[in-house]
Amino acid sequence: MAKAKNAFYAQSGGVTAVINASACGVIETARKHKGKIGKVYAGRNGIIGALTEDLIDTTKESAQAIRALRHTPAGAFGSCRYKLKGLQENKAQYERLIEVLKAHDIGYFFYNGGGDSQDTAHKVSQIGEQLGYPIICVGIPKTVDNDLPITDNSPGFGSVAKYVAVSIREAAFDVASMAKTSTKIFVMEVMGRHAGWIAAAAGLAAEKEGDAPQIILLPEVAFNEAAFLEKVDRTVKTCGYCAIVVSEGVHDANGRFLSESGLKDAFGHAQLGGVAPVIARLVKDKLNYKYHWAVADYLQRAARHIASKTDVAQAYAMGKAAVELALKGRNAVMPTIVRKSNRPYKWTVGVANLADVANVEKKMPADFIASDGFGITAKCRAYLEPLIQGEDYPPYKKGLPAYVKLKNVAVKKKLGTEFKV
Amino acid sequence: MAKAKNAFYAQSGGVTAVINASACGVIETARKHKGKIGKVYAGRNGIIGALTEDLIDTTKESAQAIRALRHTPAGAFGSCRYKLKGLQENKAQYERLIEVLKAHDIGYFFYNGGGDSQDTAHKVSQIGEQLGYPIICVGIPKTVDNDLPITDNSPGFGSVAKYVAVSIREAAFDVASMAKTSTKIFVMEVMGRHAGWIAAAAGLAAEKEGDAPQIILLPEVAFNEAAFLEKVDRTVKTCGYCAIVVSEGVHDANGRFLSESGLKDAFGHAQLGGVAPVIARLVKDKLNYKYHWAVADYLQRAARHIASKTDVAQAYAMGKAAVELALKGRNAVMPTIVRKSNRPYKWTVGVANLADVANVEKKMPADFIASDGFGITAKCRAYLEPLIQGEDYPPYKKGLPAYVKLKNVAVKKKLGTEFKV
Repeated sequence: MAKAKNAFYAQSGGVTAVINASACGVIETARKHKGKIGKVYAGRNGIIGALTEDLIDTTKESAQAIRALRHTPAGAFGSCRYKLKGLQENKAQYERLIEVLKAHDIGYFFYNGGGDSQDTAHKVSQIGEQLGYPIICVGIPKTVDNDLPITDNSPGFGSVAKYVAVSIREAAFDVASMAKTSTKIFVMEVMGRHAGWIAAAAGLAAEKEGDAPQIILLPEVAFNEAAFLEKVDRTVKTCGYCAIVVSEGVHDANGRFLSESGLKDAFGHAQLGGVAPVIARLVKDKLNYKYHWAVADYLQRAARHIASKTDVAQAYAMGKAAVELALKGRNAVMPTIVRKSNRPYKWTVGVANLADVANVEKKMPADFIASDGFGITAKCRAYLEPLIQGEDYPPYKKGLPAYVKLKNVAVKKKLGTEFKV
Repeated sequence: MAKAKNAFYAQSGGVTAVINASACGVIETARKHKGKIGKVYAGRNGIIGALTEDLIDTTKESAQAIRALRHTPAGAFGSCRYKLKGLQENKAQYERLIEVLKAHDIGYFFYNGGGDSQDTAHKVSQIGEQLGYPIICVGIPKTVDNDLPITDNSPGFGSVAKYVAVSIREAAFDVASMAKTSTKIFVMEVMGRHAGWIAAAAGLAAEKEGDAPQIILLPEVAFNEAAFLEKVDRTVKTCGYCAIVVSEGVHDANGRFLSESGLKDAFGHAQLGGVAPVIARLVKDKLNYKYHWAVADYLQRAARHIASKTDVAQAYAMGKAAVELALKGRNAVMPTIVRKSNRPYKWTVGVANLADVANVEKKMPADFIASDGFGITAKCRAYLEPLIQGEDYPPYKKGLPAYVKLKNVAVKKKLGTEFKV
């Protein structure tokens, strides 16, 4: 019997609260099939680890440490923002990749990421056919943006959705308390450059008309200043306060991001980032209400302490399914989440071809957005609600989450050559 | 036997994740002593409710609803920012207050707030002696800023401390993952205009040299740009990334807030608030590192989902103790938290005179601040650590915390007069 081929696993793009749960699923499942999969090597900083022969030997980690990945946020092996060019455009990259894979007897390639990363995985899956190196390449879905196609939702999204809905509910209780003599407007900025899924999820905090957030600003809807100000004013007059959630990608009718709308520092440089203060200042200037604003930024996608139990389970399941697909010899695929029913929420694992996943962006459907453009519909709520169900608290030590830091022992290099990325 | 006098309870100043736990302590304890305390009336929006005869009848709330206050953030009866003037300066205010208290047969006055609020409580405590209306007035400590004197710590602080330490630990895991090809600097802005207690608490996330946050900027230390940039650069070169926590009150040697350092909008107005983007932009301009920044704002003080169990217990205990002090006839006092030992952490309830509490601000001791000014000492850690111990999760419904909204039924007005506040 031939020696079992080793596996390569890497994390790519922006990390999430549960991408390590997928890593846990990959490694634990591979360890159960030692006769068929040899060692799991992780790429240090994603695909860059493969190109530079900077591999991490996950067999040096205890079962307990790998188990702890399930409750640890961010990318335990390091991630990267690095997109491979096409096979014909930069053949040297692929030749180097093959050189490294060959040196370490790697026959399985798992790539955990969003749209760009699935494009990379797709290209790698072709090196068998086009360059003669036999590989089984399986993508593992991950993105807080929830914009991957085919899969019903993406691991990572459910937890950020839960975080933003919890956060705006809490902050709205706060501003409601203060509104009589102080703050009347609270603005919370969330991620979502192109798609408004995260901002939409904040809408789950509102159970009935008038509940916060009363206004959600989505990148799918061109910002209408007059309609916005009218709704803010009406909300304050009706509810006593107004809680606003704004997606970082909100733009005007000309496509100009609001976050770039004219703020300059003392040297005249345009200020980078931050649409929340722009919205808050607009409300102050035009309506003269006292405001507070928050920018959640990384806090939202790293918030493992308030992760969705559903999301954790799905992230783990995607890692596990990827290994199982590989063991079946399936190349150029990605496991998916398939929704069976809303109430009760039931889901199962499906499979998509990487060719159909790569570089396709799933936007919010028009019928998920309220007719006035400032909220979500019942249909959207029915889709989102299951994804934030359940709590999956990490263990705590001295009052803080006990997240694992792996040893990340490097695999001894076998190639004498360097490669510049 | 004379009819038991009614009690007035109100919330004042910025709210916290646990001020309602104090309200719960007051109301539950008062309900156990019905022969001695009649009804508990809450002021709608703090002292304003008393002045405008806008009282809430808490007897209309079920035991279950009152119990739920223990796990509900912010001020259930509404808070206010409103400071009473001195008895001689604005006698009309006090005469009106007495008129309302008399009309509703109120003999106990509980005021739940920070330094300014304890000043108000102190003034009210004097109306017996100076204006002849018999009252027992007890303050209940509350402030996220932890700047009340005499009490070892203030309810509300422990939970915000836990939130910021958890958040920076999580965000640091994120930026560490991204640092190879993307973000190297993460800046998180937290509250603390005059005292750096909250920013200091973020330091609990660092267990050993090099752990995040590597830099804490406190309002107690004048900002030294050169030393700061040197440390950022050195940290990135050593750790691969740098996590920075900045207090909103950070200022330069001339006392000028960094948040006011020259950002202007298109119309030339100074931009209000946000020191995190100022710090991030400085690092970008001078060191050219890619950055992300977050502003926690209300999210930090409303975050009941990650409240400290110790803080919740102390907040409840302060409410309970206030009623017990009142039943003993103690006027012009405030219950306090007295630390008995650090390891194991033991505390008990003490008592302070309002005259000694009002308008005194407790700053961070110099020996709590690291010699380079960018972190906390072991002594500071020993003080802070017990305050974030334990989790006290709220119940969840449909994936979100089930916070209570009270009915807040108004007490029928007995006075035909209005009072302008």
